[in-house]
Amino acid sequence: MASSSSLTLSQAILSRSAIPRHGSPAQQLYPVSTSSAISVPSFSGLKSTASTSARRRAATALTRLPVRASAAVETLEKTTDTELVEKSVNTIRFLAIDAVEKANSGHPGLPMGCAPMGHILYDEVMRYNPKNPYWFNRDRFVLSAGHGCMLQYALLHLAGYDAVKEEDLKGFRQWGSKTPGHPENFETPGVEVTTGPLGQGIANAVGLALAEKHLAARYNKPDNEIVDHYTYVILGDGCQMEGISNEACSLAGHWGLGKLIAFYDDNHISIDGDTEIAFTENVDTRFEALGWHVIWVKNGNTGYDEIRAAINEAKAVKDKPTLIKVTTTIGFGSPNKANSYSVHGSALGAKEVEATRQNLGWPYEPFHVPEDVKNHWSRHVTGGAAFEAEWNAKFSEYEKKYPEEAAELKSIITGELPAGWEKALPTYTPESPGDATRNLSQQNLNALAKVLPGLLGGSADLASSNMTLLKMFGDFQKSTPEERNVRFGVREHGMGAICNGIALHSPGLIPYCATFFVFTDYMRAAMRISALSEAGVIYVMTHDSIGLGEDGPTHQPIEHLASFRAMPNILMLRPADGNETAGAYKVAVLNKKRPSVLALSRQKLPQLPGTSIAGVEKGGYIVSDNSSGDNKPDVILIGTGSELEIAAKAADELRKEGKGVRVVSFVCWELFDEQSDEYKESVLPASVTARVSIEAGSTFGWEKIVGAKGKAIGIDRFGASAPAGKIYKEFGITAEAVIAAAKELLS
Amino acid sequence: MASSSSLTLSQAILSRSAIPRHGSPAQQLYPVSTSSAISVPSFSGLKSTASTSARRRAATALTRLPVRASAAVETLEKTTDTELVEKSVNTIRFLAIDAVEKANSGHPGLPMGCAPMGHILYDEVMRYNPKNPYWFNRDRFVLSAGHGCMLQYALLHLAGYDAVKEEDLKGFRQWGSKTPGHPENFETPGVEVTTGPLGQGIANAVGLALAEKHLAARYNKPDNEIVDHYTYVILGDGCQMEGISNEACSLAGHWGLGKLIAFYDDNHISIDGDTEIAFTENVDTRFEALGWHVIWVKNGNTGYDEIRAAINEAKAVKDKPTLIKVTTTIGFGSPNKANSYSVHGSALGAKEVEATRQNLGWPYEPFHVPEDVKNHWSRHVTGGAAFEAEWNAKFSEYEKKYPEEAAELKSIITGELPAGWEKALPTYTPESPGDATRNLSQQNLNALAKVLPGLLGGSADLASSNMTLLKMFGDFQKSTPEERNVRFGVREHGMGAICNGIALHSPGLIPYCATFFVFTDYMRAAMRISALSEAGVIYVMTHDSIGLGEDGPTHQPIEHLASFRAMPNILMLRPADGNETAGAYKVAVLNKKRPSVLALSRQKLPQLPGTSIAGVEKGGYIVSDNSSGDNKPDVILIGTGSELEIAAKAADELRKEGKGVRVVSFVCWELFDEQSDEYKESVLPASVTARVSIEAGSTFGWEKIVGAKGKAIGIDRFGASAPAGKIYKEFGITAEAVIAAAKELLS
Repeated sequence: MASSSSLTLSQAILSRSAIPRHGSPAQQLYPVSTSSAISVPSFSGLKSTASTSARRRAATALTRLPVRASAAVETLEKTTDTELVEKSVNTIRFLAIDAVEKANSGHPGLPMGCAPMGHILYDEVMRYNPKNPYWFNRDRFVLSAGHGCMLQYALLHLAGYDAVKEEDLKGFRQWGSKTPGHPENFETPGVEVTTGPLGQGIANAVGLALAEKHLAARYNKPDNEIVDHYTYVILGDGCQMEGISNEACSLAGHWGLGKLIAFYDDNHISIDGDTEIAFTENVDTRFEALGWHVIWVKNGNTGYDEIRAAINEAKAVKDKPTLIKVTTTIGFGSPNKANSYSVHGSALGAKEVEATRQNLGWPYEPFHVPEDVKNHWSRHVTGGAAFEAEWNAKFSEYEKKYPEEAAELKSIITGELPAGWEKALPTYTPESPGDATRNLSQQNLNALAKVLPGLLGGSADLASSNMTLLKMFGDFQKSTPEERNVRFGVREHGMGAICNGIALHSPGLIPYCATFFVFTDYMRAAMRISALSEAGVIYVMTHDSIGLGEDGPTHQPIEHLASFRAMPNILMLRPADGNETAGAYKVAVLNKKRPSVLALSRQKLPQLPGTSIAGVEKGGYIVSDNSSGDNKPDVILIGTGSELEIAAKAADELRKEGKGVRVVSFVCWELFDEQSDEYKESVLPASVTARVSIEAGSTFGWEKIVGAKGKAIGIDRFGASAPAGKIYKEFGITAEAVIAAAKELLS
Repeated sequence: MASSSSLTLSQAILSRSAIPRHGSPAQQLYPVSTSSAISVPSFSGLKSTASTSARRRAATALTRLPVRASAAVETLEKTTDTELVEKSVNTIRFLAIDAVEKANSGHPGLPMGCAPMGHILYDEVMRYNPKNPYWFNRDRFVLSAGHGCMLQYALLHLAGYDAVKEEDLKGFRQWGSKTPGHPENFETPGVEVTTGPLGQGIANAVGLALAEKHLAARYNKPDNEIVDHYTYVILGDGCQMEGISNEACSLAGHWGLGKLIAFYDDNHISIDGDTEIAFTENVDTRFEALGWHVIWVKNGNTGYDEIRAAINEAKAVKDKPTLIKVTTTIGFGSPNKANSYSVHGSALGAKEVEATRQNLGWPYEPFHVPEDVKNHWSRHVTGGAAFEAEWNAKFSEYEKKYPEEAAELKSIITGELPAGWEKALPTYTPESPGDATRNLSQQNLNALAKVLPGLLGGSADLASSNMTLLKMFGDFQKSTPEERNVRFGVREHGMGAICNGIALHSPGLIPYCATFFVFTDYMRAAMRISALSEAGVIYVMTHDSIGLGEDGPTHQPIEHLASFRAMPNILMLRPADGNETAGAYKVAVLNKKRPSVLALSRQKLPQLPGTSIAGVEKGGYIVSDNSSGDNKPDVILIGTGSELEIAAKAADELRKEGKGVRVVSFVCWELFDEQSDEYKESVLPASVTARVSIEAGSTFGWEKIVGAKGKAIGIDRFGASAPAGKIYKEFGITAEAVIAAAKELLS
């Protein structure tokens, strides 16, 4: 395509690049005029960190809106000047090159190859407000190939996001910067999710698109489509090879997520060299098999119109997600390193940077954004504010007409929990019937679903074992997306990452997901990213020990409790009965910024005296103690989950023999660690060194609790296939063992 | 098909079901005659547990071979009597039904649906010797849908495997039985790998088929194809949904594993109900996209000839693996529960068992094998011995003609390490140049590859970062399968499970695989099965801490060391320098029955005085100590990997101030735990409570080592993106911190 800038061509391209939206096929990115009678609802998706000043800015922009919005459109037309587009694209390339060069670390190859699609997305297609990255109805963008993060930082910089100023680009990959080595939502407003570990991002994007489809189905009205955005994602060969992407994309096809548009950066290079050495499958055909619409853009390096046309085609296909395979050259523009793995993950080096500047005709200093490019992109600040204002006006209308729905949607947008929600949590007495904590969990989920409009989730094909069905709702499916039971199939890893996407879509969405506890091994990478990216997913993990019985060692968790206790920013909860299960849910719902793992029993457990929701909130607490007055107990017995009952039974026996015995539930180590030293000492007095813990799992880590003189009873081998009672007995997870250990310590 | 048993029909079926092998398209399962001058080489793949008596039995069978072999063939012809086939198939069904019923636990649905393909495989197609389950050249079978294990137990029982006698079937899922709830290779000779966690088995099968293709390419001669077997696998909808299966199957297609034949039990039912609710992709097309040959058997319930024809077709396609989609009815024969999820994972119940007996015309008592069925299957004992004897004769020929290759192959078959192999391990002095342990690891791998013919492996697209290339070899590829560098692509989970298959193919195969340590999260389920199934895979895990620097928290392991220390039967090694890396490899190679994880640095480390291979073998040992004579040190500083240097530096400083300081390397906790109490006391004397540990990872678990009065320096938060030195400093992983902690403890 020639770089002519004649008006006719500009208009032609504009028409090709225009975004069909709300049935208006040729609507432009920014509206020419918007109502001036717009109020700014105070929530509009703002997070507290950005709230007051950002709101003020948005309101200021708004008063000037009609003028600026028109200006924006004029500028947009200039976009279609191919010379300017190429200049913008090269700006993106060189910001990436320069930042990687300065850090002497990073991945220049992808940004150089994907700059064209990046430019078109952020400059011509996506709707966002750079001054409020949390505006609810924004289009979402995910860089699944997260190593190429300089692409996104360059785009955020050009678009006017405050998080990525020139000094942030210069601080790329440095301590304390907003531009870490991979995209991190918790560091950089404008980044939606945390990527880098390959395949996670595309699965997050499926979650974001699911959230949109679900909320749109629940809240949109024929006269007011208040939820309406796209989810875009760029993924590379690495993402395609990962199993998680196949899992998530199979679901996206099944669910018909028509507003999910994925760009596959088909550059034939991965770290080990040409993808021919390990990746020769037919990706297009695979995606068609998964139920996707597939488009191939053969020239992703300079075929701007091809990219635009593909996006338009993708938007026209409403019942399927679209994969746009964009064939690009990794490191495009580098005369000696393009199309080789050497440009993937290292700085080009001064000499090659210079050669690339020569090759692409780039006379500027490092980090320079040419004025015309700067001017061109500047319209997104006002235009973005206009988008938000327009939506705010729409929401005002919505609120007037549909006050109940508006209030509910508002709570999903802001994350504010309904007053008194915790009263819905079921309570139990020792007289309540005993039950497996997986069943008690279902009571909690069903109680909470009534009061928490954002609670939705499901299981990886184990709903009837994990007990996760919300009885008052149907299945979230292609034709019933308003429902709240999600059927993930046997796809644990995809499930976790999809839930991360849901959680990070809106603060009030509370996704839960479920499988057997041992199969957290299948989804651990996604769970770690929940923890890192502050996605408050609730992991409902049943069959939490040898107590599951006959399925045997492949299905019996041993080291899993320890492995999550060692992981930062995640709560590992193992409730013992009904009250503790309710407490675990209370903690899980309140901890929006850290995920919770609930380890739940398959087997029936009694309702124990002394357990409480309040106790769970402390992490560890006294369930019973017969030592009187100021006397310290002789021995402390500590249990979690199904073994708290065993500790209690052993205490009964020891007390009969006149011992002062305290029973402590240690339901959540992380929460206990956060208590005051005073509280900790009140539960586990330093002077009482006779301590016995019992837990049907690895003893690894328990030395911290029982001390050098205590005894940790647990299982430091793999399990066995037999009825649960038999295994407990053979493995010595019994009251008798606790009693014997206690007596030995006291002797 | 009518159940006529006319000779003509029998012959027709026989011809269809016959196995093309060595270019002989209509060869029968058992040869009519074999040379009587056969010697039995003493190794022939026997494991020590079965060796002497099994060898004696094989020899006995052998002397009678010509007679029995003929008899076997006559019996085989009767197989084609459809009535008998159906009787055998129903025997399989009812053995499964009865065992699950007796255990009141298990999964009858799959065995009932898959009995026809199971029967054809074990009775008509596969070559094995039931009296020597470890015969090297046996066809391998993997039940990837491991929950259906009663199918395999029934088949092993009928085929005459000693591990599964009638009492074993009656002990299904009971304590101490050989018939656990999922197939476990370490419990049941005849079971190749451990399955149950879905998708693992198909990936294991890819590893088994890779091993065959590799060994065949290395050792077969035009006149003697000494390595030549098929790998069969049955997988279900659950396996298909798991990402790991897509990863492994993409590689199988890429590698053109023509002797891998997978049966996809297409029964449309998973635990949550009809697969329509979560699994609507086109599996056939996806597999074609992955480079597989795909066949659809529409009637898997009674279409015996269709199944036979499909197998023949699959064998005829030599350059691609084959997926035979077999549409079956889960729980076939159960009048009220077939084709529903209720038959998937629960006993049918007495009433429905009775109804099924009526429906299928089965008048027998539980666990009864009708005489004609028994007689029919009995030929596999002699026939199997004949197979092995024939192969042994072939090996004798091979040995005469190609003694060097024979010796090498023999060592792969037996697992016997070449004498003096460990002399190949490189050694280092404090004067040797400092280097990253990932580079030192490569020196070890390349040194070992020269002396260990069974060492092969590679990385998940990070060979140049993990430093895993064997420089003297090329890539294992479709057209160069004799090479030993395996390119796994970005498929960690598949990689781990493929390596399990390789390791369990032959005792002398030593697979290694690699990625960044943090991405063990992607493959943890496979690593756990390495540990459980005693597959001695070597996991080469580089970039093992914040020391990787700028890539940031998504790439920096924190909790990973702890998470593997908590896992049973796996060695977590974190060497500090060259000698320790060599020690880690020595341990890893020697531990054939437990996997090893080597955590290796990206960053350069010095060669430390006092480190040794022998020290590593003890797990923890004294690197230096300036306390004299019988004096105990004032303080013990404990480090692992890259932080041992820091401990040594801190010791130098403290010693300058006159302190008695011991430095201990704690390279492998599991090995230290196995030492005598005396040895442990000699390294960590109970009387020295001033202990400081330093490790750039979670402190979880370190209380056990440093004690209540000691101090563990580590990282209990996520990492950060910055140059490594900066992060170490900011996080307090420094000699100064160790010195300060030591002084505080000593004050």
